Amino acid sequence: MKSNLKNIAVLTSGGDAPGMNACIRAVIRTGIYNGLNMFGVMQGYQGLIDNNIKPMDARSVSNILHMGGTILKTARCLAFKEEEGMELAYKNLKAKDIDGLIVIGGDGTFTGAKRFGEKYGVNVIGIPGTIDNDLYGSDFTLGYDTAVNTIIEAIDKIRDTADSHDRLFFIEVMGRDSGCIALRTAIASGAEAVLLPEKETSLKELISKLKDGVNTKKSSSIVIVSEGNKYGGAYDIAKSVKRKFTHYDTKVTILGHLQRGGSPSGFDRILGSRLGYAAVNEMIKGETMQMVGLRGNEIKLTSLEEALNIHSYKLEADLLEMTHVLSI
Amino acid sequence: MKSNLKNIAVLTSGGDAPGMNACIRAVIRTGIYNGLNMFGVMQGYQGLIDNNIKPMDARSVSNILHMGGTILKTARCLAFKEEEGMELAYKNLKAKDIDGLIVIGGDGTFTGAKRFGEKYGVNVIGIPGTIDNDLYGSDFTLGYDTAVNTIIEAIDKIRDTADSHDRLFFIEVMGRDSGCIALRTAIASGAEAVLLPEKETSLKELISKLKDGVNTKKSSSIVIVSEGNKYGGAYDIAKSVKRKFTHYDTKVTILGHLQRGGSPSGFDRILGSRLGYAAVNEMIKGETMQMVGLRGNEIKLTSLEEALNIHSYKLEADLLEMTHVLSI
Amino acid sequence: MKSNLKNIAVLTSGGDAPGMNACIRAVIRTGIYNGLNMFGVMQGYQGLIDNNIKPMDARSVSNILHMGGTILKTARCLAFKEEEGMELAYKNLKAKDIDGLIVIGGDGTFTGAKRFGEKYGVNVIGIPGTIDNDLYGSDFTLGYDTAVNTIIEAIDKIRDTADSHDRLFFIEVMGRDSGCIALRTAIASGAEAVLLPEKETSLKELISKLKDGVNTKKSSSIVIVSEGNKYGGAYDIAKSVKRKFTHYDTKVTILGHLQRGGSPSGFDRILGSRLGYAAVNEMIKGETMQMVGLRGNEIKLTSLEEALNIHSYKLEADLLEMTHVLSI
Amino acid sequence: MKSNLKNIAVLTSGGDAPGMNACIRAVIRTGIYNGLNMFGVMQGYQGLIDNNIKPMDARSVSNILHMGGTILKTARCLAFKEEEGMELAYKNLKAKDIDGLIVIGGDGTFTGAKRFGEKYGVNVIGIPGTIDNDLYGSDFTLGYDTAVNTIIEAIDKIRDTADSHDRLFFIEVMGRDSGCIALRTAIASGAEAVLLPEKETSLKELISKLKDGVNTKKSSSIVIVSEGNKYGGAYDIAKSVKRKFTHYDTKVTILGHLQRGGSPSGFDRILGSRLGYAAVNEMIKGETMQMVGLRGNEIKLTSLEEALNIHSYKLEADLLEMTHVLSI
Repeated sequence: MKSNLKNIAVLTSGGDAPGMNACIRAVIRTGIYNGLNMFGVMQGYQGLIDNNIKPMDARSVSNILHMGGTILKTARCLAFKEEEGMELAYKNLKAKDIDGLIVIGGDGTFTGAKRFGEKYGVNVIGIPGTIDNDLYGSDFTLGYDTAVNTIIEAIDKIRDTADSHDRLFFIEVMGRDSGCIALRTAIASGAEAVLLPEKETSLKELISKLKDGVNTKKSSSIVIVSEGNKYGGAYDIAKSVKRKFTHYDTKVTILGHLQRGGSPSGFDRILGSRLGYAAVNEMIKGETMQMVGLRGNEIKLTSLEEALNIHSYKLEADLLEMTHVLSI
Repeated sequence: MKSNLKNIAVLTSGGDAPGMNACIRAVIRTGIYNGLNMFGVMQGYQGLIDNNIKPMDARSVSNILHMGGTILKTARCLAFKEEEGMELAYKNLKAKDIDGLIVIGGDGTFTGAKRFGEKYGVNVIGIPGTIDNDLYGSDFTLGYDTAVNTIIEAIDKIRDTADSHDRLFFIEVMGRDSGCIALRTAIASGAEAVLLPEKETSLKELISKLKDGVNTKKSSSIVIVSEGNKYGGAYDIAKSVKRKFTHYDTKVTILGHLQRGGSPSGFDRILGSRLGYAAVNEMIKGETMQMVGLRGNEIKLTSLEEALNIHSYKLEADLLEMTHVLSI
Repeated sequence: MKSNLKNIAVLTSGGDAPGMNACIRAVIRTGIYNGLNMFGVMQGYQGLIDNNIKPMDARSVSNILHMGGTILKTARCLAFKEEEGMELAYKNLKAKDIDGLIVIGGDGTFTGAKRFGEKYGVNVIGIPGTIDNDLYGSDFTLGYDTAVNTIIEAIDKIRDTADSHDRLFFIEVMGRDSGCIALRTAIASGAEAVLLPEKETSLKELISKLKDGVNTKKSSSIVIVSEGNKYGGAYDIAKSVKRKFTHYDTKVTILGHLQRGGSPSGFDRILGSRLGYAAVNEMIKGETMQMVGLRGNEIKLTSLEEALNIHSYKLEADLLEMTHVLSI
Repeated sequence: MKSNLKNIAVLTSGGDAPGMNACIRAVIRTGIYNGLNMFGVMQGYQGLIDNNIKPMDARSVSNILHMGGTILKTARCLAFKEEEGMELAYKNLKAKDIDGLIVIGGDGTFTGAKRFGEKYGVNVIGIPGTIDNDLYGSDFTLGYDTAVNTIIEAIDKIRDTADSHDRLFFIEVMGRDSGCIALRTAIASGAEAVLLPEKETSLKELISKLKDGVNTKKSSSIVIVSEGNKYGGAYDIAKSVKRKFTHYDTKVTILGHLQRGGSPSGFDRILGSRLGYAAVNEMIKGETMQMVGLRGNEIKLTSLEEALNIHSYKLEADLLEMTHVLSI
């Protein structure tokens, strides 16, 4: 059954992720191509409440495909968790006759969208945009691939100096409670070990691995620390290790927010385009309360319900085992 | 049934591709980890014939994960197509007691490997290493993702100058008879049109699209030309278009061999690592005459027979349609 | 003597160069800081004639510092060479009470500015913006440093594949009749030889150098060809060499317009900022008919007269000699 | 007077810097070209003491020009400050008949070289290799230009996320007690303010500047903090500011060791090549106890005495003033 959709608004919410702009461009242009009026909401749900909603044409998204961040800006918005905030948001949409809302973000974003859609009957489609790759229903979330590339470029640089000095580096990477970024950047950077939220690592095991490296004449070692790991931050772990392992000079780097920015990779530009394109097409077809995601090489729907309730990233134990083997 | 494999050699053949070094590292270290003796063959099949085969230890592949090209070098080798060449190659392997051969390359490489394996009973596993992404049995071939990133970085730069001058650019990209690179870089760079080997484009349609861009106030236009398209090279097409469309100043860029090089992306480093790791593990398990490939998020076997006979890349018609919609 | 300057306009003309946006930002903000009204002219002199001149405030140049190209766009404008065109341009400036014009470009741009300033008494300051580094009075022109970085990144990638295949590459780079880019990228990329506009190279000498490389076991060779060299384009030279030197497989790459684009390097961002800042400050002090340039680490004035008449780039013979020594 | 130099050794000492490999290549090849025997010392002065000195030929420095770090490795060596250590070092050089020593590093490196040269009469030439740009006698030190580019690429990424979230970022950069990196990256990244070792900034002034940004509708602000500034680390400063300025969400990034690595820029590859080439040529001419440096566009000698005693980097007050103007 085809919807009678006329006006769609799009917003980005939660942490920004590279590829969001490619996705916004796709949403706007796909809507316009299909004869809809398109709107952009500034600063996520806050902009819905503040009525910071502007019409967008095809040229308004020119030359943004390759840019990091989000031209719609993003924010975390407490007011939208309250009845009052949602009510205001709804009135603002209603006043503009906007009957579809596409939200790009992570689980917090989807939680809000789901409640909003249920309560007011607005058509809602979610697009998984977060570097953390922690959403069920999409093999990869928008921004994750770029973040991995950004991180390994940084580690390649650190490896230069680590090698020149025979040093041990602990490098803390993002990912919240998902170890996906940590595990995969560990593989991609040839790290000697990785500490994950999904699996406790004993200090003893870690030190034993580092000693193996010394014995086999490695000129440096790199340990990736996922911010969500159970043991603590990179500084804490470095301190504990230093007490029992003094062969190398030890340094710590917290990569921080540079992991979120940068021009999106080809992968993320294509993914963002496909997800944005699909979101609008699915909404036109009458779909609502769904997330569009990449599975294999296809775009598939998952209900927001499922996307929110099923824990997404499962430790890829075979990849962890491989990390050990390949860093001998 | 477990093989009694003792010694494995690895070679790269055909065009080089980013990620081959990550893959070589994985092959060597996985073999050593499993107690095998590992050998590297220089310059592809030529090195087999010339007995340019050297033992490799874990340190011999240190610090290569992030490098473009292949430390084993590669070559196209006519002699290996002859009985005599193969015979010599076999004697050289035999003399070193090498009973397994892992080849990284494209279909030419696999054709040689298949004949060799069939004739001499050497265990053979193929790894899909080519930027063209044109092999059946793997969603992505090693090097393709990096090539896409390299190309879009180049196009982003060209877009800067195209926009500043209101210009039309024809940009020729690699891919042989597969349009995968062309189509996906067109999406990722926001190109206005793309010419593919899989689908003829009428000049009329192309010019109409370019005129639409002028009417909607685009400040530049970019057309991606796949080297294998039916119409001709980028220079030829530009000449034909210029005759009938003079709104913009027209320029041509042939990206050429820079598309093959560069530090591999995270995706290709992980893919190369996984494929190399799997190739050795599968050979240890007794597999032979197979290709390891990525399907969805898993490594799967495809027989060399199938990989060679089934045409791989099918035009992703939905993505081509999307390219038109998103470049309005 | 202080001028009574009230309104300044800025334009970019000729080929675009990375760092132009940083320079535009500096011009606009320095003017505003000093209480002037600032204007941007679109598409170089064409915009003066077409009255495409718009007021610019401090926010209008936000977030452009790091972008390639020029937000003011550029064009080559024949009409401005005619009396009529200049007259129109002057009337348009006069109507807006604009009494100062800052032009960013190369010698063609300065020629126009000089004639215009002489004829109409408009205050004129030139800023050397061209990747070719061919202007007297500035050690480096805006965009040159970025172009060098862009080129060597491309050559690094080509080196990967050249090394993997034992190949000889001829790489053609920009620079018009100045060999500065070619010579310096040859040094920076470890090229085996370089062909310059300023010095004829005998084919014999070139081939002898390449043979030396083979004898000393070089696995690849790279020859940089300046587009302005006397011998011909890279394809021609490659053909001539191939006839007498067949050791390597020979390939050609014309880097083309990607050399003009890209995010400016730190050097060019700082240079653009300093030149733009100085241009406005000097004009406020009453200077006119001058070019601001970098000499050593200082910004100095050179009269447009001198900048145009003195041939700028002299072959750095010591660097050419060094190139030979370092590529043994 | 020409020296009778026969054998030269080269070492890198102190912190590593991009371009060191380009410089090592130039030293080795220039020596070989001139008929000398060349040696590389591993791990700086430690290698002299440990007799970790190896002969190097032209091929031993192939394909390193573009690599970060130093293939000779580096270390800080306390033992070389003692009589005993120096004595051992001298014996090791003597045993190999090495009569010239070229050291690449910063002031600590030069101090050692000067004492060693004075005591044992070994010919010594220093090459300024440090990202800090803090040596008298060279406008730029080797590695500084690359570090600036690395930092601004990181800040560009952070700017993406800062803009998307309306945030204030404090970014700490290297430079020891020299503010050159901080000041110049502040200009190149369009930072709103910069804290330097050479000039105290009042908190009041800083907050006033940030408030101006809010009033003029800046969507984010970035403050560069030089590690050597008097006020404290970036975390401390952020904490103090947050107490009195709450408009933006405030974040801190310590860029850390990634600033030292990475492929050298064109500028640093050319600089490293020229300095290495000149160092050997000058030593052949009989020079000793000198540093080679870049002044304007020429390579000039400065005595180690002067290089060590004259404080190098003076605050570029005009550039600091410009930073304020351009970030309005």
